[in-house]
Amino acid sequence: LPMARMGSELRCQCISTHSRFIPPRNIQDVKLTQSGPHCTNVEVIATLKDGREVCLEPTANWVKVIIKAILDKAQGNV
Amino acid sequence: LPMARMGSELRCQCISTHSRFIPPRNIQDVKLTQSGPHCTNVEVIATLKDGREVCLEPTANWVKVIIKAILDKAQGNV
Repeated sequence: LPMARMGSELRCQCISTHSRFIPPRNIQDVKLTQSGPHCTNVEVIATLKDGREVCLEPTANWVKVIIKAILDKAQGNV
Repeated sequence: LPMARMGSELRCQCISTHSRFIPPRNIQDVKLTQSGPHCTNVEVIATLKDGREVCLEPTANWVKVIIKAILDKAQGNV
């Protein structure tokens, strides 16, 4: 069964993080979750186009590059 | 009923976008979804700490500031 993703999770979602670059074209969405009472870590979870969910390292530079790439594509919406 | 958020939605999720700044402390998570066959727009959906979901304008500078603020907090994890 897929893991339920409600508005507020009660614990950390990531046990480990994927360290290798994932091309933006393989990524469907990226969710950034703030740290809080449920989890002391900032968590970044990518859903890949094949449906897999992968935890990314929020401090990795390539993760910032991917997020920037997604937002930059939005400039084309305007 | 809360809207189901599965790995792949079949259509755009945002009818309009919230244009006013939302303080990062009020945000639980931010999800960036690439454009694709399901939707021609890049979509940015924030879940607020009160459970509301708000569509943000992906081209707004303050949206980039909020995403940077979340990632910068992760530097403190290390």
